[in-house]
Amino acid sequence: MQLLQDTIQKIKKPDYFLISEAQKRLDSLTKPQASLGRLEEIAKQIVLISGRTMPSVKNKVIFTMAADHGVTEEEVSAFPKEVTAQMVFNFVKGGAGINVLARYAGAKVIVVDMGVRVDLGNHSGLIIKKIGYGTKNIAKGSAMSREEAIASIEAGIEVFEAEYNEGIDIVGTGDMGIGNTTASSAITSVITASPLEDVTGKGTGIDDKTLVKKIEIIKKAIGVNKPDAKDALSVLSKVGGFEIGGIVGVILAAVAKRVPVVIDGFISGAAALIAYQLKPEVKDFIIASHCSVEKGHKIILDYLGLKPILNLDLRLGEGTGAALGMGIIEASVKILTEMATFQGAGVSSSLSS
Amino acid sequence: MQLLQDTIQKIKKPDYFLISEAQKRLDSLTKPQASLGRLEEIAKQIVLISGRTMPSVKNKVIFTMAADHGVTEEEVSAFPKEVTAQMVFNFVKGGAGINVLARYAGAKVIVVDMGVRVDLGNHSGLIIKKIGYGTKNIAKGSAMSREEAIASIEAGIEVFEAEYNEGIDIVGTGDMGIGNTTASSAITSVITASPLEDVTGKGTGIDDKTLVKKIEIIKKAIGVNKPDAKDALSVLSKVGGFEIGGIVGVILAAVAKRVPVVIDGFISGAAALIAYQLKPEVKDFIIASHCSVEKGHKIILDYLGLKPILNLDLRLGEGTGAALGMGIIEASVKILTEMATFQGAGVSSSLSS
Repeated sequence: MQLLQDTIQKIKKPDYFLISEAQKRLDSLTKPQASLGRLEEIAKQIVLISGRTMPSVKNKVIFTMAADHGVTEEEVSAFPKEVTAQMVFNFVKGGAGINVLARYAGAKVIVVDMGVRVDLGNHSGLIIKKIGYGTKNIAKGSAMSREEAIASIEAGIEVFEAEYNEGIDIVGTGDMGIGNTTASSAITSVITASPLEDVTGKGTGIDDKTLVKKIEIIKKAIGVNKPDAKDALSVLSKVGGFEIGGIVGVILAAVAKRVPVVIDGFISGAAALIAYQLKPEVKDFIIASHCSVEKGHKIILDYLGLKPILNLDLRLGEGTGAALGMGIIEASVKILTEMATFQGAGVSSSLSS
Repeated sequence: MQLLQDTIQKIKKPDYFLISEAQKRLDSLTKPQASLGRLEEIAKQIVLISGRTMPSVKNKVIFTMAADHGVTEEEVSAFPKEVTAQMVFNFVKGGAGINVLARYAGAKVIVVDMGVRVDLGNHSGLIIKKIGYGTKNIAKGSAMSREEAIASIEAGIEVFEAEYNEGIDIVGTGDMGIGNTTASSAITSVITASPLEDVTGKGTGIDDKTLVKKIEIIKKAIGVNKPDAKDALSVLSKVGGFEIGGIVGVILAAVAKRVPVVIDGFISGAAALIAYQLKPEVKDFIIASHCSVEKGHKIILDYLGLKPILNLDLRLGEGTGAALGMGIIEASVKILTEMATFQGAGVSSSLSS
């Protein structure tokens, strides 16, 4: 609990005056004012978060946190639970969607076993922070103990901090866990006080009948566990997941170091909700890479007041949207730092100049 | 006229059966089916356009075509006409928005003087294809002769073909020309039969009063010149611009070689309308990088049935949106060509597998 408390305590509000510094520079560049739209907004946000007027987001790291979910025994997914471990092997071999998109973005992928149900062995690029062998079935009881919830967050903090020493300018979050949209819908419904029907989607691609059942199971899970919406650790432990706790830890640790956090889709969003409940100031440090097809994601983004960069109908997770978003963010920063000014380039900045 | 006719004649419908080939591969990759949304759609389109089942879009070239507009004497822009030439110098020195974003995307920028009102001299990376020293004022008469319209398109074909011999996998279009949103609004209104109020925006950032005047001027231009909506060369010559003709040429030449064309914002969109009128088959080969703030752009995209990749509130032109879009397109292609298959990675593809 000490590491979590210390990390939360280090999170401060950013220096808002930096926004006007960044605005001044953007308006001096050879383009009509604000003509690069959201690129300019994103550049300002990176200045705000990093505290640097000429920032760089060269060193990019994506943490893809994996864990299993006991609720899969209720058959709420289109894929068997074995796929979590199989996909972790795919990640370490470099063949998954996140590997392809992170390579393209120039981002390092760090895969973390937060609680896969089998032992995965040693692999280069895989960090073992196993809190348990999958969560328990939330339809029958708590996913994990409160101590395990704290341990999962602290494990996320530790993996971030270890990597931070190697150099991180920007961090992305990602997930792998068959059954984890079920947990994320439960978290989202409880924290945002939204009807389950509005925050529960088809995940990996279940049919309409299974969707009805999935909603029933989540209702049951909330009824059985009675998570306290005002206590983020209660929500995480009762209906969450180990990988979700790990992502919460990465978010908190990054924000404490003023490193911009690019969240991916629905599962990262659910983790962001928990991080936000723990420390509302994190919101200013989070950038939403995209809006997922998984419909609860939009509710999360609206709740947090985040505007997604991309709308590409993604619903894969793993950090894939974060990788794409990082590319747009780096381009934004380069606009701020590499474009010529009107004065420097000898270009008239208005009719009268 | 011969080069234009020959180029148009070379344009054929793509081989639609390739879509199902690409779909088969996408569905064999380690992800839930269609979970990468628009990335998968874009990858299929690149297969269709290129005719290759495992395409590459490594060699990227953006043509930024510049020219002046006589209509600037009506004071329809927030910037003086001198800025066109000043920005061309900024392009060749590498300080403009397009330079920054093209560098980031790994794209080469080729700047073409299609009709700037002054002589620019020799500069590395600048091609001179001057059709005239700016168009004439469309409020008083035709922007250019029909012969000049054809010459501008053929110049675009020539610059593409010269560069094609160096190797191009994907091409982007861009523009520079103070006054060219005025010409583009006129083209869009005529071809799409839309009220001028719906297709005329604030360009580089004029005030409300100037916007009213801009609409008046365009009305006058259409009244004086009576462009024939069914004759694309009439529209281009009467209310167009030399850089718009150049972009038309690049589009036609690229499509004739089955090279995907990534169009930028409103001006590139107006050029796409003309290319489409000349040969409707070009539509399948065009990818819309983004939807501009300049409101006529959405009308163009809807008219052509194109769905923009990005919505970033851009309105700079130069090819900046095309550069960003190319990054997403290349990522899409890498998903298709670099991801592991279920079988190859030993991942279960369904509950029963």
